[in-house]
Parts: sequence; structure tokens; C-alpha cells
Amino acid sequence: MSGCPYFEKKHLLFKNKPSTEESQDASQAGGEDSKGRIIYGDYLQLDKITTAQVLQSELQGNKIHDEHLFIVTHQAYELWFKQILFEIDSVREIFISGHVRDERNMLKVNTRIHRIVMIFRLLVDQFAVLETMTALDFFDFRKYLISASGFESLQFRLLENKIGVQDNLRVPYNRRHYKDYIRGDDTETLLDAEQEPTLLKLVEEWLERTPGLEVDGFNFWERLEINIFDGLNAEEKKIEKMPESEEKEKLMAELVKQREHFTSLFDEKRHDHLVSKGERRLSYKALQGALMIYFYREEPRFQVPFQLLTSLMDMDNLMTKWRYNHVCIVHRMIGSKAGTGGSSGYHYLRSTVSDRYKVFVDLFNLATFLVPRHWVPKLNPNVHTFLYMAECCDSSYCSSEDSD
Amino acid sequence: MSGCPYFEKKHLLFKNKPSTEESQDASQAGGEDSKGRIIYGDYLQLDKITTAQVLQSELQGNKIHDEHLFIVTHQAYELWFKQILFEIDSVREIFISGHVRDERNMLKVNTRIHRIVMIFRLLVDQFAVLETMTALDFFDFRKYLISASGFESLQFRLLENKIGVQDNLRVPYNRRHYKDYIRGDDTETLLDAEQEPTLLKLVEEWLERTPGLEVDGFNFWERLEINIFDGLNAEEKKIEKMPESEEKEKLMAELVKQREHFTSLFDEKRHDHLVSKGERRLSYKALQGALMIYFYREEPRFQVPFQLLTSLMDMDNLMTKWRYNHVCIVHRMIGSKAGTGGSSGYHYLRSTVSDRYKVFVDLFNLATFLVPRHWVPKLNPNVHTFLYMAECCDSSYCSSEDSD
Amino acid sequence: MSGCPYFEKKHLLFKNKPSTEESQDASQAGGEDSKGRIIYGDYLQLDKITTAQVLQSELQGNKIHDEHLFIVTHQAYELWFKQILFEIDSVREIFISGHVRDERNMLKVNTRIHRIVMIFRLLVDQFAVLETMTALDFFDFRKYLISASGFESLQFRLLENKIGVQDNLRVPYNRRHYKDYIRGDDTETLLDAEQEPTLLKLVEEWLERTPGLEVDGFNFWERLEINIFDGLNAEEKKIEKMPESEEKEKLMAELVKQREHFTSLFDEKRHDHLVSKGERRLSYKALQGALMIYFYREEPRFQVPFQLLTSLMDMDNLMTKWRYNHVCIVHRMIGSKAGTGGSSGYHYLRSTVSDRYKVFVDLFNLATFLVPRHWVPKLNPNVHTFLYMAECCDSSYCSSEDSD
Amino acid sequence: MSGCPYFEKKHLLFKNKPSTEESQDASQAGGEDSKGRIIYGDYLQLDKITTAQVLQSELQGNKIHDEHLFIVTHQAYELWFKQILFEIDSVREIFISGHVRDERNMLKVNTRIHRIVMIFRLLVDQFAVLETMTALDFFDFRKYLISASGFESLQFRLLENKIGVQDNLRVPYNRRHYKDYIRGDDTETLLDAEQEPTLLKLVEEWLERTPGLEVDGFNFWERLEINIFDGLNAEEKKIEKMPESEEKEKLMAELVKQREHFTSLFDEKRHDHLVSKGERRLSYKALQGALMIYFYREEPRFQVPFQLLTSLMDMDNLMTKWRYNHVCIVHRMIGSKAGTGGSSGYHYLRSTVSDRYKVFVDLFNLATFLVPRHWVPKLNPNVHTFLYMAECCDSSYCSSEDSD
Repeated sequence: MSGCPYFEKKHLLFKNKPSTEESQDASQAGGEDSKGRIIYGDYLQLDKITTAQVLQSELQGNKIHDEHLFIVTHQAYELWFKQILFEIDSVREIFISGHVRDERNMLKVNTRIHRIVMIFRLLVDQFAVLETMTALDFFDFRKYLISASGFESLQFRLLENKIGVQDNLRVPYNRRHYKDYIRGDDTETLLDAEQEPTLLKLVEEWLERTPGLEVDGFNFWERLEINIFDGLNAEEKKIEKMPESEEKEKLMAELVKQREHFTSLFDEKRHDHLVSKGERRLSYKALQGALMIYFYREEPRFQVPFQLLTSLMDMDNLMTKWRYNHVCIVHRMIGSKAGTGGSSGYHYLRSTVSDRYKVFVDLFNLATFLVPRHWVPKLNPNVHTFLYMAECCDSSYCSSEDSD
Repeated sequence: MSGCPYFEKKHLLFKNKPSTEESQDASQAGGEDSKGRIIYGDYLQLDKITTAQVLQSELQGNKIHDEHLFIVTHQAYELWFKQILFEIDSVREIFISGHVRDERNMLKVNTRIHRIVMIFRLLVDQFAVLETMTALDFFDFRKYLISASGFESLQFRLLENKIGVQDNLRVPYNRRHYKDYIRGDDTETLLDAEQEPTLLKLVEEWLERTPGLEVDGFNFWERLEINIFDGLNAEEKKIEKMPESEEKEKLMAELVKQREHFTSLFDEKRHDHLVSKGERRLSYKALQGALMIYFYREEPRFQVPFQLLTSLMDMDNLMTKWRYNHVCIVHRMIGSKAGTGGSSGYHYLRSTVSDRYKVFVDLFNLATFLVPRHWVPKLNPNVHTFLYMAECCDSSYCSSEDSD
Repeated sequence: MSGCPYFEKKHLLFKNKPSTEESQDASQAGGEDSKGRIIYGDYLQLDKITTAQVLQSELQGNKIHDEHLFIVTHQAYELWFKQILFEIDSVREIFISGHVRDERNMLKVNTRIHRIVMIFRLLVDQFAVLETMTALDFFDFRKYLISASGFESLQFRLLENKIGVQDNLRVPYNRRHYKDYIRGDDTETLLDAEQEPTLLKLVEEWLERTPGLEVDGFNFWERLEINIFDGLNAEEKKIEKMPESEEKEKLMAELVKQREHFTSLFDEKRHDHLVSKGERRLSYKALQGALMIYFYREEPRFQVPFQLLTSLMDMDNLMTKWRYNHVCIVHRMIGSKAGTGGSSGYHYLRSTVSDRYKVFVDLFNLATFLVPRHWVPKLNPNVHTFLYMAECCDSSYCSSEDSD
Repeated sequence: MSGCPYFEKKHLLFKNKPSTEESQDASQAGGEDSKGRIIYGDYLQLDKITTAQVLQSELQGNKIHDEHLFIVTHQAYELWFKQILFEIDSVREIFISGHVRDERNMLKVNTRIHRIVMIFRLLVDQFAVLETMTALDFFDFRKYLISASGFESLQFRLLENKIGVQDNLRVPYNRRHYKDYIRGDDTETLLDAEQEPTLLKLVEEWLERTPGLEVDGFNFWERLEINIFDGLNAEEKKIEKMPESEEKEKLMAELVKQREHFTSLFDEKRHDHLVSKGERRLSYKALQGALMIYFYREEPRFQVPFQLLTSLMDMDNLMTKWRYNHVCIVHRMIGSKAGTGGSSGYHYLRSTVSDRYKVFVDLFNLATFLVPRHWVPKLNPNVHTFLYMAECCDSSYCSSEDSD
């Protein structure tokens, strides 16, 4: 925030003077003036940020004005990818360390996923700036870029992997795996990241722990199954009583479909089959947890988890919108002619705007399993009570505050 | 654009191999792989961009998560300021070099000012990302920033100066001039910039050359004055014929005001007085040019100039909206308590959301001098012809293409 | 959503056939085809919506194209104001009926306030559409509108009143009260609305009930006061030990200011004085509740309340940004000339972009009372337990589900 | 713009009192108070706009809160569709009447297409408001809507048809034509509209008239063909001189492809074949005109036409983004289960996010035919001169001013 005076000297009182040692570090990294104040430009390392625009066209003796915009736009994307990765990593850390079992950490988790949503919203809008460059302007310098390709963005691949885009669902580009487009030392970073649990995996584990799923407790899943088929049977009886008619037949046919559909919901083998095909991503148990949170979203215990599921869908949605906007600008810049290697960049990108790349696709598709409110198993006062059990605090909380 | 494959090998045909010397430069600055291809990450200098986030709170042993967002957001602002300065400078260069007299360059001028508009639109939206940080999150690390202040942003000051924020209209911060907040060597950059003609000044000169203003030609200004006062006199006669009534009196009083108002328009001394007070910024002649462009905006000769004036107002408007959004987030982060030195940051910033900082304020206020279409002097076919004279091309055009 | 097929016949199963009586109502209001299906255009009453654009300029024989945009834009604003009022009323109803004591209703409250935020965000962006009309286009038809003024928008005044803009803090327009600009029968609607509790008032009452404020319980306020002054005293001692220097003097002076500032926080009389001047809006007790929610925002019990406070600030912020964008477009359309009656529309509107119109201004200004985390009173396990007490459900919940 | 005082009494002077007859019309349609002033609410017909929200769920005895948002959102879409149709019709009228031959009308054409762009930008953002409704909220009332479907939106179909979505390229929905989903009397409106020339057709005719295409004049097309093949031949010779290598082979293979590609450009039969398959939309001559405008966009004569082409692409792009955002929200609301009739709503909608629905797709794909600047035929001073000829004004201009 330029012109932002809000870190004035006001709170000096609360400042713990850094030790000499620390202070040196600070001055190296942050930069201070003679009075030991940190200087804005040094703090932000503007000497790096604002000098990193070198135009290839200029180097080759034919400076093209619009290449500067091209560079700055891509740098802004990478800067925000850095921030998104920072947030994703911190959220994954909360899940991995088990801190998420302390419900207090859910505020952080929610806030940070929401922040990623807001950043992606900005990144979608950011295309409007690049769209001020026409295909003709781009043509003037794209020859100087030769093969340097955004396809090689390490951070974007990391982002996809850490959220949980599945390797076997990726569309190959010109029959080659995306990793072939990443440089040597960066490949290692990618491989390391693939060893870590994805956000999808961590959310899955968390969903599996949803209170209320226990078979020897509330046993949500069994109760739900009973209620749904009771409901469908009652519907059937109502329809059977109707006089014969086209309408009756249609309703009966529809009922048969509904029953099939819901039967599939409670069929674990079928679920695992869909998972193996990549049509579902969450475990059977996690799916149950998600549906439970959906149905009891108004319970105090579930309001915050419900928000998390909503934010995860927002994030997925915005990533897919980002991909689509990307497709649009590529169409604009280079048209849809097929490239040398076979499929064109445009057509490759189009193929990634697909549910295969929607990590939390199950949360969307749960919408096909909604039922009327009176079919949802009632919580008894007992259950209300047990729900809060998970909220007990661990005494070590205050000390480990911001260790993520 | 990550995942952007649109600078593939396709147009190698058109590529002029760089000389060995150039190629070395290229490999230093751009980075190439063993096959001489430019690598994406090197091209964008991501080693600088994505390693420039050093948290003061971490250096001082108490890492606060949200400081990362704070840094990245400010860096994104500075990155875009760099781009805006690049565009402003290129536009100023076109004006300074006289290239603008070749009407062909108006496409560039318009496109680039429009681009600045689109960037500012993004920058206004960008506050929504920073707003995911609460005052409480900010409080946790603002003590580490001590006095480093966005107030010290060199680029933002350069931006203001190059567009044409007037020094004598600036609001002092804590009774000190803004330059006191800029570091030594940067002050020089600022002083140098102040010696160059501002965008306001250059647009002013361009407006003064508007074809049709010539006293020995179409003489727009004299004709307009005649028409307006003829119009007002005709109105007066109509009103005089009305029977006495409250309505008649009101109309007559209103007419008197109108006449006064328009009299002031044609009073050069009064104009200069307003300029000296900072209430007007353009010269008397430039104001005439702007009004002429307004009234004849549909003439082929004036369509593009009219768009430029509109874009300049868009830019001014968005800068002022950016300032206001800045005020809002500061209120949110630190409240409105007055600071140590007197005025609080919040109140200072509020005072800059003012017409004093609207560089092209005259273009807005011309709205008070509009008249019915039939009062506007008619162009005769002759005039239509003279209008296109300015469009003759200079033969040196093609060679100097992108020298800006 | 045009082209939106998502309310297909799928869920016919769950449909309770309406009784004959109801069905008639439905067909009157909704419109059905021969098969009893509701027709899209009838459902949305498009015969009203898309025929409500009558151009005054056309009626008076001089159709001006851009008046159509002017009408549609204002109608879109009014349509969304209708939606905002609907949300505000439903939230107020939850508070008034005491349903908010059932924590389950907080999801609704939060969702709806967040929805208002999203609508206002859209309304701010909507100005960009109207900005495609220039002052010159507007000039061509504004004469036909004579005195019809957006100042007369009933819904906007209702909105302000229901949220809680205070009558005595309003800026009079041309020395007259805003109600003078509202038509007869509408004034009654306004007066009625003024009798109802505002959102501000209802939130205030809810904040006063924040668990933990009880003097005979956790007694947050007393504990906080003790901790803060202990903290300040410790700071003082540290400073006193420093060798004499300019720095020491400054720190001591700053400390004195801090102590004054915090002393004022615990001074109920001073608080009431500020309330009487309109500088604070919440009661002393409610302010305590808000600060408590701030400090313990991570507690499961307070996460959702904290979100509500954040959303209320978002809403306030966006209303004020809406006002400012309005100011900008008025400047553009009519310039800044003072009007007949004295103050110009432009200057009047500018004066409403003020903290006087920020309803939840106290929530912003609490940022001046933040303290280091270790000054905040620790909750003991006991306290953790008591916090969840309020979440017990009333048995009548399920039946009254959506009665709001 | 509520609270908008900018149509105050100021310009009463210029007002031509309406005749008694007109005045009656005015009072009927606009509404005046006792003093003959037009009342804001009457002017906007708010009695229609703000009373058109009837909830089906409420009529059927089970009011669901979120249905109100659903209705208002759809009404806002329809309101803006009305505005877009109004702009499209006015632009088509300018083209049909031949007014576009008077270059002065290009300002209107450009402004209005740009306005449509800004409206679509808003409509894309508007989904963010509807996204505050979850699938669960929607489930609660979608049963009441039975088959009423946005698919039945007359205005959206009109919009598509008037811009130029081709009937034979449409994806059938459940094997039925979209017109089957439109009500009887509305079908007629649709059929009527299909008889009128589409925007695509009108732009095509205008492009065919691009000055410079004349065979007995500048003859752009022939000159371009010569230059391109000269250029390719020169490239070939350069490559032939290279020593044998893998690189050389690759370059030669690429050259062959380039030659094929450009050969296709100058092959009218092939063009007509592509048109018949729907892969191109513009006539051969119009394509030439578009490419000419691309290459000479900086010429004063072509700057405004170039902007028009750019805006048309913006419009196309945003319509397709709107479609995609629609797909996303449908996925969220109902999941991706196939519907009764076969294809699901979700999958149908996905299929419309396709280049088949991009009306001005040729303008995008021209990007594949760009060539280096020095291959573009040079304009000689003569040509510069002839370019301005078209700008001569017709004397009838002033009288027909705003007759569109």
C-alpha cells in the first residue's frame, strides 16, 4: 500500500529490542537507515522486484513496448502463486501436525483458504490487463521468446500438486508428461512435493473423523440409509394409489431411477470403483463426513467445517475459471491453429478446463444426493452434547501459537 | 500466464539470429538451456521475484504468518507501479518528441492510457485481498516495521509527479513535505523527474494545437461565445413574455446565474486567477481545445482525441478511488486515533482524497459549461476538410516505428 | 440465469401437490402452461420488468438513446436494494425474535450479511457501466428529468435507517431534511421503519450478552484493565532504567499518551460522552463484548461471532465505497458547480462519505485498543467449558425452521 | 443512483415545455407531483420493479428465504439483457440504414459495443452473488419451480440470434431444438428476429467495403499474397544455405507447413468450404477487410475500425465467459448427474462453451495469419490520401442526429 503510513512509530512501546545478532540479520535483509529504522524500499527488496524486467526484444536490438507488460503480468502471477503456496503449506502444516484437532485452529484454516479464494478472484480479473495487448502486439515479440513457455512454471505445478491434482488424470501435452517441461533441479522440488500429503488427502482424513459417523455412536450413515429408503418406499406407495395414467408411469420410472441412484450411494464397492476411475476422489468414509456436515451445517459444531467445504469449492471453481480465462486469452493471442507437435496450445489448454482438474469435485457432486430435510436423521440432545467434545483445548496451545 | 504455451517454437522462421555478442547478453539476462532456448523462470527472473519475501517478524524470532501477505501485496503494487511508469513515460515520450503530430501515434497513446486505467482498476480490487488480514493480525507484526512506511514509496511519488500532481497543492504530512520521507539518492530521482514535462503539461500543449481554434480560421471560441449569448438572450425574451409569477421570477434568477457563469468562461483573466489558486490546471487555450473536442467528438478527426480525454478522466477517477480504498483499509487496520506527530495517518490520507489531487479536474468541470447542441457552431464542409490536414504522414514513419 | 436448466423435472418426487386453492394463487402469480408447468417469464414477471423503461425524452418528442441506460441502471440498483432490504429484515427478525440465542441461527445471520456484502461489491462495480455514458450524453436528456432525483429513493433511505444511520448525524441537503424529499405515503413507511430496532441496536444487544463479561463470572473487563495497566507499568520501569537520552524521553512521552488512551477506554462516563456526540455508537457493555470477541476470536465459541463483526465492517466499508463511487460519477456528469439552492449535489454527496455514515465505526476504532497477546487475560479450562453452554438447543427448533 | 441529485432543476432554461398532449403522456408514464415535477419512483416504475418478487415456495405454504435471491438475480439478468438488446438493435439500425457510411456514427457504434462489453463484465461478476446460495438452500425450493427453466429465456435467445449465433451450429438440448422451449407467442418474436440481418452479417458487409481492397485500386489482397510468398521464398533460400543438420531439417519442415497454411489463406474455395462447415463465418472479402484493418490499424482511418473489431472480440469473449460461469454454478447447484431425458443440464451447458457459439471467431483466428511488419504492403502517400475520402459528411447529418 503505497503512501501507507500505518506502520508509524506508535507501538514502539511493545517492541522488544532485537539482540545485536538479530539486528544484523535484520539490517542485511531488511535494510535500515542511520537511525536504525527499516526503509520501505529495502523492506520490500524493491531493488530486486523493480529491476527484474529485461526485454528479450530489447536485448536483440528491437525493443517491443508490450513485452514489458507481458513480463510484469507473468511476474505478478508468480508473486501471487508464491503467496498461495505459502497459505496452502501453512494449512497443510496445521492438518499434518494434528493442530486441526484443536478447533481453535479452524479459524486460521478457514481464513487462509478464503484468502486463496480472494487471490484467485484477483488473478482471474488480472487477465483484463493482459487483454489490453492485441495479437498484433504480441506477434511483434513472441519470436524472441522461442520456446520459453509458461508451461514451465514450477510454482503452478507445485500448486496443482499440493492441492491434489492427480497425476493420472492430467492431460499430456504433445504426448509428453508435464514434468518433461520442468528444468532439472526443479524436477526434484516437484518430486519432493509429491511425497507430501496433498490438501485433498488431508481434508479427506479430517472428514473421516467427523463426529457422528461412529458405528457405535450416532451412526449417521446407517440411519440415513434407513430414512432414505423409507422415504422412497412411502413415495412408491403414494404413486401406486394414483389412477393409471401417463403421469403415473413417469413418476414411477423416475422413482426407480432415484432408488438406483441412492442405492449406489450406499454401495462401498461401487464407490471404490468410481475412485479407481478418477470419478470420485474422497474415501467412502470421508464422503459420509462431508454429507453429514452438509445436512447438519447449522449445528454450531458444523458451521465452521461447512464454511471450509464451501471455500474449498470456491477455490476449485476459481482455479477452473482461471484456466478458462487463460484459454480465452491464448485463443486471442495465437488463434486456434494446431501447433507443430500435434495438438495446439489452445486445444491442450481447453482440455484442462475439465472436471479431471477439479480436485474437490465430490463436494460438487454431493448435490445429487440431497434429500428433503425431514428425511435427515434427527440429532437428540445427547448428540448435541457429544458434538462439543472435540473442542477441548490442549494446554500447550498458547506456547505453540504461530509455529505453523 | 502459467501453463501458457503460446510462445512455442512456431515462429522460428521469422527469428533473426542474434549476433554472438547480443546472444551473450541474452543468455546473461534471460537464461538459456543447453539448446539455447530461453527458460521461463530465467526470463522472468523468478529467482529475484520469489525470494524477495523476508519477514521482519521472523528475523526477530517471532514469525507472524500474515506479514507474508503484507509484503507480497505491497510488492504487487510496486510491480504494477513500475508498469504504469513505463506506460506514462512512453506516452510522454511520444508527446515530447512531437510524434503525436503524426496522428498514427494516437492509437498507441490511447491504448497505453487505457492500459493504465485497467491496471488501476485491478489495483483497486487488490485491496480485497489485503482485507483478508484483520486489524488483529496486523497488530501482531506492525511493531517490527517501526517506521518503514508506504509513505516512502518512491514509485508512487514519481507516478504522481509525472502525471502532474502539483507540488503546491499537496497536503503536507505532519507538517513535513513528502520528500522528507524519501531516501537520499531517491530524492535525486524525484528532483530529476520534476524537471521533465508532466503528462498534464504535454496534454495541455496538445490541446492548445486543436485544429479549429485559430482566430484567423474557424475561430471556434469567438463563434461559441456569440452563440451562447445569443441563446441566453433568446431565453430571456421568452421568459419576459411570461405572465408575472413565482415561476417566472425563478427562471429569471436562474438565467442571471447562467449568464454570470458563462461570462466567467470567456474571461481569460478570471481563468488565470483560478489557475493561480489551483482551481483550474489547464491553460485558457487548452481549455478551449478540450471543449471543442467535447462538442465535435463525433467528427472523425476528434473521435480518437475524445477517447483520450475520456481515458484521462478514467485514470484520474481510478487514482482517486485507489486513494479512497486505501483510506478505508487504513481505518480498518489502525483505527482513526491521531498519531504522535499530530495528524493521524488515517486523517492525512483522507485529505488526499480531494480534487487537489485530481490532475485533470478541468475535464470534469467542463461539464458545467455544456450547452444545447443547436448552440454549438456549425462546421461547414470547408472546415470538415481542414480537419483532416493534420493526418498527413511523415515519410520517416516506418523506420522509427517502435523507437519510443 | 438464462439458459439455466437446473430446475428440471428431477425432483418431482418430493413435490407436495399444492391444494386446489393454493394452485390457483400460484397460477395467478406464477403463470403456468397448459400442463400446469410454471413458465419462466411468468415466474419472473418479466412483463413488468422488461416493459418498465419509458424514456422521458421520447415522450417529449426527442428520444435520447442513453436515457435507456440511465433508467435500467437505476432499476438494477433498486432491484438489488430490494434484495438487501429483504436480507436485512430477515436478519433483524432473527435477532428480534430471540432466535439468535439458538446458535444454529448464526449460520443464517452470517450468510445473509455476507450476501449483502457481495451485493454491495457488485453495486460498486456497476458504476463502471454507467460510466460508459459521458457528461455530454447525459446533458442531452437531463433537462427532461427536471427535479426527479435519486435523492428521493425510498429504498435507499430505508436501508440506511434499518442498518442504523443516525438521524442527527445526517448532513442536511440544501438545509432541508432528507424526508422532505420523500413523497407523502412513503414518508409513513419511513416513519414506521424508524420505530423498529436498527441492525446496529440489535447487534449491540447481542454483544452485551457476550459470555464472559459477567462480573460474577470470568469478568473479562476487570481482568483486562488490570493486565493493561500492569503491562504499562512494566514498560515504564523498563524505560526508567534506560540512560538519559532523547530516545528515552520520547518513549516516556509516548507511554504517557498510551496510558491516557487506555484510561479513556475504561472510563464509562467518557464513553457515554462520546456516544452523545456521535463519535461512538455502541453501549459501553457492547464495546466490551466486541473487544472480547476480538481477543478470543479463535475460541470455537467466538469464531462465528468474529466473522459477523468482520462482515459488518465489510458491509459498512462497501456502503461508504459505494457513496464515494457515486460522488465520482456525479462529478463526471455535472461537474462541481454549486447548485441553485446553495451547496451543489456534488459537494453534498462528498459530505456523506464520512465516518458519520459509518454505522459500525466503533468496530473499526477498536483497532486503537489492541494489546500484545500476553496482556490478554488467559481463559482457564473452566471458562472454556462455560463458553459452550449457550449452545444448548431449544426443542422447538426443528418446527420453526424457516419461519423468518 | 440513489441519493443522486444530479438531475436538479438547473437546466430548466433549456427545457422546451412539452405540449399539453405530450405532457399528459408524460404524466401517465412518468408520474408527476402536484407541481408537475416527475417523481423518481414513478419515473423508474418502481411499483412494477420492486413488487415483482413472488416466491413460489411461499405460495405453496413453505416460504424458503433464498428463493428471493434466485428471483432477483434472474430479474437483474433480464434487465441487463434488455439493455444489451437495446444497444444491439441501435447498432444494427445504424448499419442497416447506411448511417455507418458517415464515419461520424462510428463513435456511437464503438461506444455502444463497448457498453455491452462492460455490461457483460458485470454479468459475469454477478454470479458471485448467486454463489452465496448453497446447493442445500437451492434444494429447498427447486421442487416448486418444476420445469420453469432459464432455458426458456426469450431475451437471451434473441440476443444470441441478433448477434449471430448460427442455428445449425447450436447444440440441441435433449435432442430438441431450443425453440421448443419457447412459448407460442414468443416463438413468433424469435422467428421475426431471425429474418433481420444479424450483427455478424452487418459487420461482414461493412468489412467488405474496407477502402483499399479494390482490385483496381490499392489491391491489398494481391499485394499481400505476393509479399508473403516472396518472404517465404527468401526464408527458404536462407535455410538452404545452412549446413545439413537436424535443425535445418526442422526449419525446412516448419517452412513447408507455413507455406501450406498461407496458401490456404488465399484459396477462396477452401474458405467457402470452411464457411459451409461453420469453421469460418465471414465472407472471403470481409476476411480481407479485417486483415487489412489489423495491419494498418495505426492509420487514422483505421484506428476506430480496429477498436470496433477489438470490442467485438471482447464481447464474444465475455459471452463465452458468462456461459462458463453459468456452467460452474450449475455444477455447484445440481452436480453433474445426467438428467431424466438423457444429457444433464450441466453437460448440455458445457457443450455450449464452445467455439461454435463464438460469433466473431474469425477475428480470433486471424492471429494465425499475422506476418512480420516488413511483409505488409506499404501504403504510398496517394493511398494515405484516398483513405480519408470516406469521411466526407452528408449534409443531412445534423437533422437526423439521434433518430436511431
